[in-house]
Amino acid sequence: MRIDIISANVNILEPVTKNGLISRAISGEHIEIHLHNLRDYSEGNYRQIDDTQYGGGAGMVLKPEPFFKCINLLTESINYDEIIFFTPQGKIFSQSDANYYSLQKNLLILAGHYKGIDQRVIDKFVTKEISIGEYVISCGDIAAYVFADAVSRLIPGVLNDAESALTDSFQNGGIMDAPVYTKPENYEGLKVPEVLLSGNHKKIQEWKEEKGKENYEKYKAKNGKNTNL
Amino acid sequence: MRIDIISANVNILEPVTKNGLISRAISGEHIEIHLHNLRDYSEGNYRQIDDTQYGGGAGMVLKPEPFFKCINLLTESINYDEIIFFTPQGKIFSQSDANYYSLQKNLLILAGHYKGIDQRVIDKFVTKEISIGEYVISCGDIAAYVFADAVSRLIPGVLNDAESALTDSFQNGGIMDAPVYTKPENYEGLKVPEVLLSGNHKKIQEWKEEKGKENYEKYKAKNGKNTNL
Repeated sequence: MRIDIISANVNILEPVTKNGLISRAISGEHIEIHLHNLRDYSEGNYRQIDDTQYGGGAGMVLKPEPFFKCINLLTESINYDEIIFFTPQGKIFSQSDANYYSLQKNLLILAGHYKGIDQRVIDKFVTKEISIGEYVISCGDIAAYVFADAVSRLIPGVLNDAESALTDSFQNGGIMDAPVYTKPENYEGLKVPEVLLSGNHKKIQEWKEEKGKENYEKYKAKNGKNTNL
Repeated sequence: MRIDIISANVNILEPVTKNGLISRAISGEHIEIHLHNLRDYSEGNYRQIDDTQYGGGAGMVLKPEPFFKCINLLTESINYDEIIFFTPQGKIFSQSDANYYSLQKNLLILAGHYKGIDQRVIDKFVTKEISIGEYVISCGDIAAYVFADAVSRLIPGVLNDAESALTDSFQNGGIMDAPVYTKPENYEGLKVPEVLLSGNHKKIQEWKEEKGKENYEKYKAKNGKNTNL
């Protein structure tokens, strides 16, 4: 998969490509991430990329020209499956969305920053508006980080152990992860549940399912209607 | 506000403290972020921080000892308002949660990575389990990034223009941001809506509210019951 990201502050995402899961996905040649600095497509001596809002109001708006230039250049050679803009107004991102995007070949992300992007860019190019949650963050780059991580880890070969992604919370309706424990068995009097030490695979599986269901019930109780699970 | 973050991979968050909104919040002395490398609190020649799961199953689990050591050391001198663990099982993070956390003085975040943290750490210390959304990401560090950004920007003085945060989507029930436009008025035939150029403040306000309501309706249509707005 190839992800192109047009950004007003590429410093935010550059380190992301060098650390953690995304860097492993890149070095394993499972994904490519190409960052495009919006400023490189701006005009004039000051390379201005934002300006005040028409009609007044606080916050600067990213100008249309640099986006149009950059997107027109990219789409000359690349056929994007989706052109994505992160916004609080978007569809709330879910694990099934992550599955969908993990199957695409070319994605283009327009990373806005406060107060947003000139609407003409969105109207002209964007095919999917996504919200990573019902809260406001300072820029689309952080949302792009979450998105790229959630999507990359579903691409076969990115996780060391393929089973890990298949047993994720959210992949099995109504069952979440059970609590996990590792050595030591007894840490200052706090003990690992006995069943996990029993070697009885069937009982362990039953315990995990029971605890997973309990976690799901707690989750529903905490989040009420604010969940689609 | 002081945020301490205990992490298995501090490389992920180190650049975050040097770029974007969070770096400005730090240099303006509105927040402090202290990263604690879990490995510094591990034992033995190999400084092992994770191990296999009791009861079997894919994925490594972060061991209890390094967390206990680090947390016990920190809580000797700091009284945390909340000790936070990011997990798909948590309460789904919202803008009202961001408001709540922005009013706290000391927060401690335990950043897990796949397949999680030994449950004894969570049972012993964690006061709030938070989910940034209904999807799985590779580590709590990325969730901590989203959280720290969403919370920092609500602290007075962090945003250049205080009004910006007050007019956020989600802060006004039932009204979202209207589309925004900046120069030029006419970009290759694509025009800024005339009302925004009219200078008629009342009409502009009415237009923004109408468009904000329209965006809210589209949002509800997209997200159905999966929203608390």
